[in-house]
Amino acid sequence: MFAGPTDSPGASPGREMYTLLERLFPICRSITGEGVRQSLSILAEFLPLNLAEVPSGTPVLDWVVPREWNIRDAFIEDSQGHRVVDFRENNLHVVGYSVPVNAQLSLEELQPHLHSLPDQPEAIPYVTSYYAERWGFCLPHSLRARLRTGSYHVVIDSELSEGSLTFAECRIPGSTQEEILLSTYICHPSMANNELSGPVVTTFLARWLMQAPRRYSYRIVILPETIGSITYLSRNLEELRRNTVAGFNVTCVGDERVYSYLPSRNGDTLADRAALHTLRHLHPDFVRWTYLDRGSDERQYCSPGIDLPVASIMRSKYGSYPEYHTSLDNLDFVTPAGLAGSYQVLQQCLTALEGNRIYRVTTLGEPQLGKRGLYPTLSTRESKQQVQTMMDLLAYADGANDLIAIGDRIGAPVWELQELAERLCGAGVLERVRQLG
Amino acid sequence: MFAGPTDSPGASPGREMYTLLERLFPICRSITGEGVRQSLSILAEFLPLNLAEVPSGTPVLDWVVPREWNIRDAFIEDSQGHRVVDFRENNLHVVGYSVPVNAQLSLEELQPHLHSLPDQPEAIPYVTSYYAERWGFCLPHSLRARLRTGSYHVVIDSELSEGSLTFAECRIPGSTQEEILLSTYICHPSMANNELSGPVVTTFLARWLMQAPRRYSYRIVILPETIGSITYLSRNLEELRRNTVAGFNVTCVGDERVYSYLPSRNGDTLADRAALHTLRHLHPDFVRWTYLDRGSDERQYCSPGIDLPVASIMRSKYGSYPEYHTSLDNLDFVTPAGLAGSYQVLQQCLTALEGNRIYRVTTLGEPQLGKRGLYPTLSTRESKQQVQTMMDLLAYADGANDLIAIGDRIGAPVWELQELAERLCGAGVLERVRQLG
Amino acid sequence: MFAGPTDSPGASPGREMYTLLERLFPICRSITGEGVRQSLSILAEFLPLNLAEVPSGTPVLDWVVPREWNIRDAFIEDSQGHRVVDFRENNLHVVGYSVPVNAQLSLEELQPHLHSLPDQPEAIPYVTSYYAERWGFCLPHSLRARLRTGSYHVVIDSELSEGSLTFAECRIPGSTQEEILLSTYICHPSMANNELSGPVVTTFLARWLMQAPRRYSYRIVILPETIGSITYLSRNLEELRRNTVAGFNVTCVGDERVYSYLPSRNGDTLADRAALHTLRHLHPDFVRWTYLDRGSDERQYCSPGIDLPVASIMRSKYGSYPEYHTSLDNLDFVTPAGLAGSYQVLQQCLTALEGNRIYRVTTLGEPQLGKRGLYPTLSTRESKQQVQTMMDLLAYADGANDLIAIGDRIGAPVWELQELAERLCGAGVLERVRQLG
Repeated sequence: MFAGPTDSPGASPGREMYTLLERLFPICRSITGEGVRQSLSILAEFLPLNLAEVPSGTPVLDWVVPREWNIRDAFIEDSQGHRVVDFRENNLHVVGYSVPVNAQLSLEELQPHLHSLPDQPEAIPYVTSYYAERWGFCLPHSLRARLRTGSYHVVIDSELSEGSLTFAECRIPGSTQEEILLSTYICHPSMANNELSGPVVTTFLARWLMQAPRRYSYRIVILPETIGSITYLSRNLEELRRNTVAGFNVTCVGDERVYSYLPSRNGDTLADRAALHTLRHLHPDFVRWTYLDRGSDERQYCSPGIDLPVASIMRSKYGSYPEYHTSLDNLDFVTPAGLAGSYQVLQQCLTALEGNRIYRVTTLGEPQLGKRGLYPTLSTRESKQQVQTMMDLLAYADGANDLIAIGDRIGAPVWELQELAERLCGAGVLERVRQLG
Repeated sequence: MFAGPTDSPGASPGREMYTLLERLFPICRSITGEGVRQSLSILAEFLPLNLAEVPSGTPVLDWVVPREWNIRDAFIEDSQGHRVVDFRENNLHVVGYSVPVNAQLSLEELQPHLHSLPDQPEAIPYVTSYYAERWGFCLPHSLRARLRTGSYHVVIDSELSEGSLTFAECRIPGSTQEEILLSTYICHPSMANNELSGPVVTTFLARWLMQAPRRYSYRIVILPETIGSITYLSRNLEELRRNTVAGFNVTCVGDERVYSYLPSRNGDTLADRAALHTLRHLHPDFVRWTYLDRGSDERQYCSPGIDLPVASIMRSKYGSYPEYHTSLDNLDFVTPAGLAGSYQVLQQCLTALEGNRIYRVTTLGEPQLGKRGLYPTLSTRESKQQVQTMMDLLAYADGANDLIAIGDRIGAPVWELQELAERLCGAGVLERVRQLG
Repeated sequence: MFAGPTDSPGASPGREMYTLLERLFPICRSITGEGVRQSLSILAEFLPLNLAEVPSGTPVLDWVVPREWNIRDAFIEDSQGHRVVDFRENNLHVVGYSVPVNAQLSLEELQPHLHSLPDQPEAIPYVTSYYAERWGFCLPHSLRARLRTGSYHVVIDSELSEGSLTFAECRIPGSTQEEILLSTYICHPSMANNELSGPVVTTFLARWLMQAPRRYSYRIVILPETIGSITYLSRNLEELRRNTVAGFNVTCVGDERVYSYLPSRNGDTLADRAALHTLRHLHPDFVRWTYLDRGSDERQYCSPGIDLPVASIMRSKYGSYPEYHTSLDNLDFVTPAGLAGSYQVLQQCLTALEGNRIYRVTTLGEPQLGKRGLYPTLSTRESKQQVQTMMDLLAYADGANDLIAIGDRIGAPVWELQELAERLCGAGVLERVRQLG
């Protein structure tokens, strides 16, 4: 049975999601290291997660799992011994994957290692250097401008060493082998919309999915962006290809500004159709991006030869809002209502997929609905209008169109058609063409 | 030979059609009964109609032929013995298929059996109750508002009994088995645009079709809406599927307001292409409805598994004009000019179909038209323009496009291309790819 | 190797082309005769042209090669012995293919043989009568209006006799049998844009093509319009069908007003895609004609059963500018800059075709560009933007889309993608799917 209206609503868990996000926020994550493990162990309180560790140096598709990075402390101290930049205050202060350093430098020598944003003088930018050995500090431009010439003590107490890449997986079996993939990433330090909203909403969606038996199986993966999805694909590609009917990359789902959609590579998969249908009905003013605007794990999932049906439903898309990849993407930008809205849209989209079947009318010509108690017996101009949706569904239930296609054609939300279609099945005038779940 | 210009024009029979409509107007029709038989016997004065009677209780697709309904009289009499509502004045006063009644009722008891339209206080609404046993009266809202409390004598002298459903068929053989279907319905009491314009225009079209040999065979059916087409399909489905190349549901063709088009279910049949082509050239301001706006026998003809190529060319479409299904859809609303216009458009559409062939140019490269006397020998800027249509036809006569498709592409009406194509066949530069008639 | 940027630029030969056009301008050409031979012999100073002579009376497709026309002198002399119309002043004065005449006529008798343009009173119109024996004079309407009644001595010293039709061909072999066709026509008397710009620009394009080895073979044909392309097709059709991947009819490429495009018959060939892509990037305000606006040798090349992939890139299209087919289409209307612009657009279009290959990414998932030195190692918001085009190319290099299709999809000019694709091939992340050259 598909997810009916009875198990979807209830109190929206916006507040709970926000509380979880607050717990995760201070942790210093990167694509590897203790920050990821610590974050996943918190999520494991909510979900039965299987954690995997893939050793540094393991070849994964065209890539190699990098060394593991961990950091204990970092600062820039002026000649008076004041920490003018302090990792303990904000973990964005250190360039991700910085090699260790402990040196006394003049301001001039220090400058090439500093990153700031003149246009956003109060924001700390987020900078990484995963694949070249560098070190650096990020700081508000206003602070940088106030630094005086002189000598600075620079310390990054980090470690770049053989270790492993960590990711988590949760498999929720359904009544068929066919799967829906939910993928989200966890590899950014203290930023809220990109990225913590993703793992948090995904975790709560998974909890909801586990509450009732489903038609589809679900595969939930939480992994570092890019290298994580590449690693996951290198281990699961055949299975994913065989089973995945639709997938969503869950990211940037925490603010309240807009809803948005980013397609799969060719934009024509079931995931695309379900996402567009859902957004058109729930938030018709959503922003429609193209695949040229991509920037997350669809880059792997949709790449040539992999071609999984993965789309994205987001709120403010990565790269499109001023707070993106800065310290301003914080707990003020993300809200309980923002998280709850995304949760509901994704729930509705998954509900659309669960009930998306192909039906065929069992009669030749229109069925006589009156004798089955489905049609008002008194024909007036008004009553004719009332059965329009039912008749339109019957008119297009030709064994070729699925319910989402019919809904798009007749202008009705698929979740209403699902209920109607099952009622008409019960009355014997429709039958399922593909009895899958 | 297709219908050339010589047999199509002549004096437009608008006045004759209107006179026939006036004769049919007063008859009280329903989906069964003497009213239908009486109407068809009048049409049989004009056309060689075969009448069929299908007994009540006969299963027809998902339906059953209902009992036959006949009515002799009906009224509401006040305590002074005045008939405040009288069937003999207007047969719309009685709810169609009302069971008999003879009772003395208070106004309060009577009210649930009354139907009126507060928004159109002078109109009698048209109401039926085919598939549930009820009785009722329809009256102007202004009259209803004037009814005083008191006792009313209510009589409906009707009969609902085993009988039969009546329909008529006229088959006009052509030079091929391939058929064009013209279907119209006859089951409404005194209303003019919906429905009497349909049988009247169809009858005159059939007379015109019989005047000359045709390429296509024609199947004219006049039947009660819905149950009639279902009954007809139940008896003729295989033949219709095998032979029908295009069909039209002829309805609402009597007023002067607009022209309109309603497609088949997927909108891509030959009937759709011919209808659109004709309206674009003759009445480019026509209204284009979708299949979601359907409401007549295309609901049966185009239903999944039946899928006949049936479209509608109309004037003011059922359900879209304020007079629809009221006593205001009367002999003032329909006019001789309105009927004549529809007649001409449908004639032109059938002419388009008759001559719609696939041609192929017989030469490689452009044919030398000059040596065949088809091209002006003096090349000036003006003369080049004159042969443009001929050259465009030759350019697209590639053995794949039919003439309607070519006309749509080059912006020329197909009836001009037909004449030209036959001339070019005569000159040996075109040949018919499918010699069908 | 395709034509890279190093061999395409250099000093634009606008001035040289204009000088050549000036030499050709005075010659009196028609579809046959010495004027064509004389013009081709001048072009043969620039190109290794093979000239062919096809005898009068030879059947060519649906046509026959006409008799050869030559003219020595022609005039209208008034009674005072003044030449009021003199062929030696402008060869447009004589209707093309006029039969000889030597007669004394009254003005009234002369008038039916005169052609002028009331709307352009100072222009001599261009008129021909190839396929009916006539004679006539063309003159400015203002001059015609001044002719007084009286007797005129009319002489056309022309000859219409068995001879031959002349055309020229230049074949430039490439590394594959696959060919690109450049066709241009030479059959008009003294007019500059239509037609001399065509042979002149084509000649210089051919010279450029011969400078470096090419992937495609090139077939350059210079022939009288219509009867010339028909003749050429009659002798080369099978070879053209087998080898031609794209072709262009080069005409009206000399003025400075606009750029324009006219498609092949169905508008979907490689030639169409290359022409549209090139114009969209170089001159996005180009005029887009349809095949209904055709009027040159695409009428033959694209006719049913021949169906060569031939499109046109032009400046002011024949028939669309007021000077067309009059003495105003002269050396003032065509300019060095106008010729040079067309030359560059066609160069770019051919360059687009030369490098238009299908590539496939060699990895599953995105390739790791960093380890190949292709990706900036420091990830900032800015650097991500810089590699977007490279990533987009990799995303759509799926072995199905060619580079023009990818360029159209990602909004990048194909000549940039070609360089990038070859670089990525060198780095091992792309491979050619069809190694053709």
